[in-house]
Amino acid sequence: MPPLLSQEEIDKRLKQVDGWRQDGQYIVREFSFSSFKDNMVFVNRVAEVAEEIDHHPDIVINYTRLTLSITTHSEGGLTRRDFRLASRINEL
Amino acid sequence: MPPLLSQEEIDKRLKQVDGWRQDGQYIVREFSFSSFKDNMVFVNRVAEVAEEIDHHPDIVINYTRLTLSITTHSEGGLTRRDFRLASRINEL
Repeated sequence: MPPLLSQEEIDKRLKQVDGWRQDGQYIVREFSFSSFKDNMVFVNRVAEVAEEIDHHPDIVINYTRLTLSITTHSEGGLTRRDFRLASRINEL
Repeated sequence: MPPLLSQEEIDKRLKQVDGWRQDGQYIVREFSFSSFKDNMVFVNRVAEVAEEIDHHPDIVINYTRLTLSITTHSEGGLTRRDFRLASRINEL
């Protein structure tokens, strides 16, 4: 597993992933869709990326709203893997 | 919209939907799967039922764990629609 990032490194990387904010040991992004169906289509694409790179966000679906939260549970905080996942999600 | 259920009605209906418990204005059930992929397969089946009956649970996916929470937001509490959705999910 990669090492935990310093706050300075986190701040720097956050600037490179639009829409994500830090919430303690997580980075979080909220999305809004025009329908539940569209939300589910996007969630499934996120799930494919997660499986591909074997790193999984916490996923909260509230009808047309979606919240993704990412951390490296095994390290107890943020690592570069989290930002890699956020970056891949932003490319969807 | 159907009317809010009394606590007595809620207690009676809860006995008919295995695995669900009341949490305030919600009924909640937790699931565990052997893989994230299996979890997503089930979530997609839940989503299909939700679309079919136009009633959507809040969905929380934490890797192999899934938490579904159901309420009737427009009524501010539990109605028979919530138990119908729980029952349909239990048939999956």
